[in-house]
Amino acid sequence: MGFWKTWFSTPESVSATKSAAFEEHTASTGDPSANSDRIVFSTERDIDLYELEELCDAVGWSRRPLRKVKKAIEHSFLVASMWQVRGNQRRLIGFARATSDHAFNATIWDVVVHPDFQGKGLGKALMKYVLKKLRSEEISNVTLFADPHVVDFYRTMGFMSDPEGIKGMFWYPH
Amino acid sequence: MGFWKTWFSTPESVSATKSAAFEEHTASTGDPSANSDRIVFSTERDIDLYELEELCDAVGWSRRPLRKVKKAIEHSFLVASMWQVRGNQRRLIGFARATSDHAFNATIWDVVVHPDFQGKGLGKALMKYVLKKLRSEEISNVTLFADPHVVDFYRTMGFMSDPEGIKGMFWYPH
Repeated sequence: MGFWKTWFSTPESVSATKSAAFEEHTASTGDPSANSDRIVFSTERDIDLYELEELCDAVGWSRRPLRKVKKAIEHSFLVASMWQVRGNQRRLIGFARATSDHAFNATIWDVVVHPDFQGKGLGKALMKYVLKKLRSEEISNVTLFADPHVVDFYRTMGFMSDPEGIKGMFWYPH
Repeated sequence: MGFWKTWFSTPESVSATKSAAFEEHTASTGDPSANSDRIVFSTERDIDLYELEELCDAVGWSRRPLRKVKKAIEHSFLVASMWQVRGNQRRLIGFARATSDHAFNATIWDVVVHPDFQGKGLGKALMKYVLKKLRSEEISNVTLFADPHVVDFYRTMGFMSDPEGIKGMFWYPH
């Protein structure tokens, strides 16, 4: 409901989003039977947390308390989702979010694409969408922490690891 | 003004802060003449932006538009400052802030200690204060991007670089 509202009520971002998504989709699958499907993107925060949990389950992430996921979504600067739309049905197939100080830095977290939709350029399309949104907010420094197997993926998107020797560091409570 | 209000109006955090800071201070300087000074910490956001700029100038950082610094401070999850208090006077000698989703992740930015106060354990005291505040908010993952010359400093604070091969990555608009 919130999703559709956003989709139809913000024509400027939607038209750009829809066409970019459609281009990406047709360019990457080359499957004539997929012509009736569309891939669309949204920054709507009103995401069904169970649907999001299902998506995260599909890629094998540890479950997290939904109460905390809800809080994290509320306090993220950007929440991006990717949907397969077929007729009246929509399915959540990708997600990413970013924290930010709204001025200088943004950090991207929880990037996920459903395994059924991987290898079709959709992770790239999702990240392009995220970067476009962050750039439109004048964020000058976009960061993330990449697992080893996706470092090369982010490199192809223009991310640099350890630029000028800057190291990503983690501290866990003890 | 806002500073003093916070300092005196939140007795629980203040008493802990004052004693921890004082311990740190006396432990690290060993200077009897410094007994009349105190180092205090605050999470007050109402920081004089010119005083903050002066502090950042002192360590050679590039100047940033104060309008953006103001916005970043407003939208940071935590803003921590360190002050030298001598009689009625206070001087801003350290600063750090963190962005966060208020649930899982926090990222620390802009850690600075005035050169006159470096080498006395005060950077460590400031970081301890920041970590204590973040831990009290149930943040489970604290991250930062460390310049090469401070990687070892953060290691001594318990930060790990590239744990399990996770790489910090940066993207700049082009």
